[in-house]
Amino acid sequence: MTHSRTVELEGHLIDSGTMQRCFGAVMDLGGSFDVEQFDVGKHETEESYCRLTVSADDAETLRDILHELHQNGAVLENPSGVDLVAAPADKVVPPDFYSTTNHPTEVLYDGEWIDVERIEMDCALVVEPEGNQDGSPRAYTKTLNAVEEGDLIATDRSGVRVNPPERPRSGGSAFGFMQGGVSAERPSESTIREVAKELRAVKEDGGNVMVVAGPAVIHSGAGDALADLVAAGYVDALSAGNGFATHDLERSLYGTSLGMNVETLEHPRKGHKHHIWTISEIIRAGGIEAAVEEGIVTEGVMYECVENDVDTVIAGSIRDDGPLPDTITDAVEAQNAIREQAHDADIVIMLATLLHSVAVGNCLSSTTKTVCVDINPATVTQLLDRGSAQAIGMVTDIGTFVPTLAEFVLEGDA
Amino acid sequence: MTHSRTVELEGHLIDSGTMQRCFGAVMDLGGSFDVEQFDVGKHETEESYCRLTVSADDAETLRDILHELHQNGAVLENPSGVDLVAAPADKVVPPDFYSTTNHPTEVLYDGEWIDVERIEMDCALVVEPEGNQDGSPRAYTKTLNAVEEGDLIATDRSGVRVNPPERPRSGGSAFGFMQGGVSAERPSESTIREVAKELRAVKEDGGNVMVVAGPAVIHSGAGDALADLVAAGYVDALSAGNGFATHDLERSLYGTSLGMNVETLEHPRKGHKHHIWTISEIIRAGGIEAAVEEGIVTEGVMYECVENDVDTVIAGSIRDDGPLPDTITDAVEAQNAIREQAHDADIVIMLATLLHSVAVGNCLSSTTKTVCVDINPATVTQLLDRGSAQAIGMVTDIGTFVPTLAEFVLEGDA
Amino acid sequence: MTHSRTVELEGHLIDSGTMQRCFGAVMDLGGSFDVEQFDVGKHETEESYCRLTVSADDAETLRDILHELHQNGAVLENPSGVDLVAAPADKVVPPDFYSTTNHPTEVLYDGEWIDVERIEMDCALVVEPEGNQDGSPRAYTKTLNAVEEGDLIATDRSGVRVNPPERPRSGGSAFGFMQGGVSAERPSESTIREVAKELRAVKEDGGNVMVVAGPAVIHSGAGDALADLVAAGYVDALSAGNGFATHDLERSLYGTSLGMNVETLEHPRKGHKHHIWTISEIIRAGGIEAAVEEGIVTEGVMYECVENDVDTVIAGSIRDDGPLPDTITDAVEAQNAIREQAHDADIVIMLATLLHSVAVGNCLSSTTKTVCVDINPATVTQLLDRGSAQAIGMVTDIGTFVPTLAEFVLEGDA
Amino acid sequence: MTHSRTVELEGHLIDSGTMQRCFGAVMDLGGSFDVEQFDVGKHETEESYCRLTVSADDAETLRDILHELHQNGAVLENPSGVDLVAAPADKVVPPDFYSTTNHPTEVLYDGEWIDVERIEMDCALVVEPEGNQDGSPRAYTKTLNAVEEGDLIATDRSGVRVNPPERPRSGGSAFGFMQGGVSAERPSESTIREVAKELRAVKEDGGNVMVVAGPAVIHSGAGDALADLVAAGYVDALSAGNGFATHDLERSLYGTSLGMNVETLEHPRKGHKHHIWTISEIIRAGGIEAAVEEGIVTEGVMYECVENDVDTVIAGSIRDDGPLPDTITDAVEAQNAIREQAHDADIVIMLATLLHSVAVGNCLSSTTKTVCVDINPATVTQLLDRGSAQAIGMVTDIGTFVPTLAEFVLEGDA
Repeated sequence: MTHSRTVELEGHLIDSGTMQRCFGAVMDLGGSFDVEQFDVGKHETEESYCRLTVSADDAETLRDILHELHQNGAVLENPSGVDLVAAPADKVVPPDFYSTTNHPTEVLYDGEWIDVERIEMDCALVVEPEGNQDGSPRAYTKTLNAVEEGDLIATDRSGVRVNPPERPRSGGSAFGFMQGGVSAERPSESTIREVAKELRAVKEDGGNVMVVAGPAVIHSGAGDALADLVAAGYVDALSAGNGFATHDLERSLYGTSLGMNVETLEHPRKGHKHHIWTISEIIRAGGIEAAVEEGIVTEGVMYECVENDVDTVIAGSIRDDGPLPDTITDAVEAQNAIREQAHDADIVIMLATLLHSVAVGNCLSSTTKTVCVDINPATVTQLLDRGSAQAIGMVTDIGTFVPTLAEFVLEGDA
Repeated sequence: MTHSRTVELEGHLIDSGTMQRCFGAVMDLGGSFDVEQFDVGKHETEESYCRLTVSADDAETLRDILHELHQNGAVLENPSGVDLVAAPADKVVPPDFYSTTNHPTEVLYDGEWIDVERIEMDCALVVEPEGNQDGSPRAYTKTLNAVEEGDLIATDRSGVRVNPPERPRSGGSAFGFMQGGVSAERPSESTIREVAKELRAVKEDGGNVMVVAGPAVIHSGAGDALADLVAAGYVDALSAGNGFATHDLERSLYGTSLGMNVETLEHPRKGHKHHIWTISEIIRAGGIEAAVEEGIVTEGVMYECVENDVDTVIAGSIRDDGPLPDTITDAVEAQNAIREQAHDADIVIMLATLLHSVAVGNCLSSTTKTVCVDINPATVTQLLDRGSAQAIGMVTDIGTFVPTLAEFVLEGDA
Repeated sequence: MTHSRTVELEGHLIDSGTMQRCFGAVMDLGGSFDVEQFDVGKHETEESYCRLTVSADDAETLRDILHELHQNGAVLENPSGVDLVAAPADKVVPPDFYSTTNHPTEVLYDGEWIDVERIEMDCALVVEPEGNQDGSPRAYTKTLNAVEEGDLIATDRSGVRVNPPERPRSGGSAFGFMQGGVSAERPSESTIREVAKELRAVKEDGGNVMVVAGPAVIHSGAGDALADLVAAGYVDALSAGNGFATHDLERSLYGTSLGMNVETLEHPRKGHKHHIWTISEIIRAGGIEAAVEEGIVTEGVMYECVENDVDTVIAGSIRDDGPLPDTITDAVEAQNAIREQAHDADIVIMLATLLHSVAVGNCLSSTTKTVCVDINPATVTQLLDRGSAQAIGMVTDIGTFVPTLAEFVLEGDA
Repeated sequence: MTHSRTVELEGHLIDSGTMQRCFGAVMDLGGSFDVEQFDVGKHETEESYCRLTVSADDAETLRDILHELHQNGAVLENPSGVDLVAAPADKVVPPDFYSTTNHPTEVLYDGEWIDVERIEMDCALVVEPEGNQDGSPRAYTKTLNAVEEGDLIATDRSGVRVNPPERPRSGGSAFGFMQGGVSAERPSESTIREVAKELRAVKEDGGNVMVVAGPAVIHSGAGDALADLVAAGYVDALSAGNGFATHDLERSLYGTSLGMNVETLEHPRKGHKHHIWTISEIIRAGGIEAAVEEGIVTEGVMYECVENDVDTVIAGSIRDDGPLPDTITDAVEAQNAIREQAHDADIVIMLATLLHSVAVGNCLSSTTKTVCVDINPATVTQLLDRGSAQAIGMVTDIGTFVPTLAEFVLEGDA
């Protein structure tokens, strides 16, 4: 027996690749489609509309196909409202709960499409019927471990509409559209100039800049340049790990990173113990802020973050030495802190850290601009492969990237 | 002043990404478009048709846009025949010569669309008005250095039609469609099983299998498995370099590769001179075939290629030791030999060599199946990034890939 | 004014590279040396002895030089006993505390050299004067965050002797000696056979095998082979993360990994939500063991670990979805659990995970055998770069490595 | 029966690692040694001397051991003169011919040690008894394909002495000593500053700077900076391929590289045909120099090389488009041209090309300073892994490296 459903899509369906993905999904999953209506946007600024009936030999295949189409923005013709089921216990969701994408999303509740707040992928979608102060319904995402008994959880995609990002109408920007692949064959300095331009534009618009930084920023000698950007007010939030903070503080205390003097290149010996002594000094002081206040730490990224009231999250990991007293050792607690930063960010600059960048990326909406920089192409590819509407991936050396970026950003200030 | 032209496209325009690329090209290049007509294929097996007027503020931009659309299969409405200009001298083409893509191509000559033979990218397109035995016109590609004075060379895209490969109608194969990116997150053994299945299928259909192999095949201990495939008749053509051949012959003469016994792992010392002694022995014998006949070489890939009359091309490079007497040291001559192999191949397996794989890939039509295997993801990405209709890219260890492939291919023979 | 000290070294000083590193350290740091006595071992089994006076222009340089020599096994002539200072508070060490290496270490306390227990790098060295049941002194390492007020902490290297691993007397093994670099030019199957041989030897000697595994083991289709090794008793401890466990459980619940059927290669779509549904199911069941007992999970690595009482640690990270109820989310707590596993291990097999492998590696003595396998050469290099006495690094595909290893290990059992 | 021989070594045997390698070789190959005498240099400036008897159970093992020791500088006690055998035919060497290392080498001929000229590895060693104008003997290397019938070829290592480079007496330089491994964890700008300092020092001493450049230099936008270095006289020889030259010339002719405007980042489309049109234009002009003279090419690296009489070699490969008329398509002929450049160079800067760098590296003595820069760590490791006495390896982005280097080099000129 053939199972069928009719769905509708609208938007810049062709140039955003939406129709290609939808047709491809139907064929890959072994179904078939009938195009009932297809009104193609006549100009580049006109949207298209498509009504499509998809069929499959069994209900499960049809469900899989509809799942794919849904994630690409398709809505059932004549959708019913969202199905809500109360969570049976804390952290326990109903069996068929709707798991979110990272795209802007709406739910059809009580006859109206309402926006879902705090967009983030792989979450439960909670509706509070009178969640707003005016008694109107409110919808937002919750991670599984934040679900509380009784939360009303969406359990079917039929009343949910996803709005994947569309291809920007103007071309030629260094920001690519939903491209997982990354090419090393781009002019490096020109691309950095584009990032600098964007960074300045975001700040001029009063936007929020989040930097995610790995320890290689310090080892590669780029710490001073990042500190300069912080001091000049170009960084609103810093998300890093115990390793980054430790190596930055080591530079302030001993002038070295992993035992090497980053300016003279002297004493690059593995045996040096500066990093563990640094941790010990900060523990003794009672934390980074205390160490800054006591005059123990007098320069560097962490110093500038304290001095400039940058929202700083140091998330712990199982490979940490110490850790520093400021490090949030619980992964769930650290995720929540990162989540707040990510939701506030207008642009996120990810510098040479896979772990922290993935953690941040997990919390980002597909509409947040991202810049991913790493010497390892696999890292950049993995970070870009999330359907971000505007993303720049650069396979480059962080040790020359950050100083060049700082120069381009700050020269306009002079 | 606005400049405009109208073009037509037909085929599986949406799921093959053709329309997305065309609309994107217009916008990226700063033009605009009007869709005059768009008949969308109603089912997955029905083709679409689009008539489109593109406009730009200046003639040069319009030309750039039309160039892009042409390469994606667009044809001017009411095309005129191809413009032909005689080459003024050997190796010299007319200034505005048409440079080919790697997609199937036709030229409109004397009122008829005729197929272009020997499809290969970045070539001149030559038309012989009475080139066929029956006096009918013939069209084919020629590399720049093969152009002869007086050749009639196509100089304008208006009478040329390109047919980019379309998305296969059935999904679920390991072969991807025009995807440059490659994911390491695939089940390795299952993918190798797919390659084995394809290899057997090509041979069962009487097809031609070409293998391109780098020296890592031998260092990694996979030489025996490749020799087994040759001996069993699964390799029709081998394209390799002086390094591959030398290391394979070293195994036969000394049991080592770069001085290491590949079975016992003994004596892995850099100082060993087996490879240069091997070259010296083969020079003394007068070549590989002579060395096989004299009983100096008694096993290995080169041995099996001689014994099984495999079409073998050993192309030289500037990093070669020796080289062996069989190595074609002139790059143009070697390219021509590789070109013959590539044009005959129905499937090409590229094993751990960027240089030789690129050389072969340059000569391949986009309709030839390709399998690219390398431990370096950047190599696989670069090789796949050519718009091949059916390609498998694997980031894996050649030292386990070839033995596993041979096992899967040959177990069906038992 | 010249500052000088005399030190002594003994052992296989030349072939282990000890003297080369010591002379190099003196010169790199700007000092000079006088060899007072050098008795070279006359045969490969005889140890050497060296007495050396090192000098520098200032006290700080001399201290740095002595620090390096100490780490390579040098002891001051006529050493005084270890200096001990009580920790002033929990987690706070004395300013000049001695930070440990990962090499076997002794302290000179009360006129006797006593072995330091629980060898691990970057720790404090604690002496309990009557720590043993018989009232004799005991020495062991403590991480900074485990230090308690009043612990007697070593504060000077003068009474500490480090014994770096020496080159094994017999050569030709696949296990390399203290080599950070790793070559891809080794025969893959032969090297895997060596690992298999070693694994069987360790188990035959009643030894403890620890496996550290990343999610790529499952994505690449190698989960079944690892489960077979667990079922056959070749794995005593498993150290992994929430991602590994989730993807393994997804295979048992849905037959997929990241939404792709690892055998048929079907449905490789990003949108699939199996992994988050899997986490939800395990939360509902109350944990992995409960899910196995309820018959929800019926196969895979986690299943076999439960069934075979394998010591399993699932350590959390900030990139985790969920997490599973079994995941230890606190980094310090997770480190402590990993530390117990690492201290018990006789051989550690690290499979395609940088984060967990580094965490485990941090806790390992340089005398523990390690095998590091990853497709990314930089990962293998980083993991090997720790002065391990016996280590194998392989740049290979985990998806073919584990099945081949399992075949080689288990075929001897048939 | 035990076979034994006695050898002698002298020099900075310990800190250069010579003794470690020699003892290791004996043990790895299954032999044993007796140290007859070992006089250790008492200070860092004093050389050591060692006389050593090595033994093995069979003659072949002893020969292998002696081969290794020889390559590390050991000489048989009471060496006989070199054995010379006439080459039986062109390109054919005697069966047991001595194959050279890349270290400075001497032969004992007629009772005197004479220096071997044109040091290069894997060559035959030819002695001309009256080769010098004054009738004295002369020794030099010849590649196999350059050997002529009657050449007197060394056939035994007994009369040959190799002098491996020794560890420089002063430390702290960015130039590493014989280190194959390369760490990305170095401060990038500081290291580039060291390279700049070295480059200026070589030129101030009247030395010869050779640059080996791949096409990524142009794609990444670094062409202008390299052209500046050429124009300022910092480049004496350029070794590149057809691809590098074509992309550089494309920039001059069209302002693009692979179709992308490297400054505005506009029009990055694969379809662009500028590179093939560029080749066609240069063919039409008759070559690069002619194109410069005709005013067709007016800027860029090739332009500056013509204007500044830089010794330029463009070597062909099988992946070339065109090629340009200037490209040497025969691999042996190209090698010979590269060989002349390499032998003249005092420092070689290798920029983002594996093929050309390996070709150049094959011709270099171990005493030539080398700087290897590539974004791929495997490339840098492979290039450094040749026992170079002074080498810097950098894993960095060529697109920021070259401009930064040019800035540091040229700022001193201002």
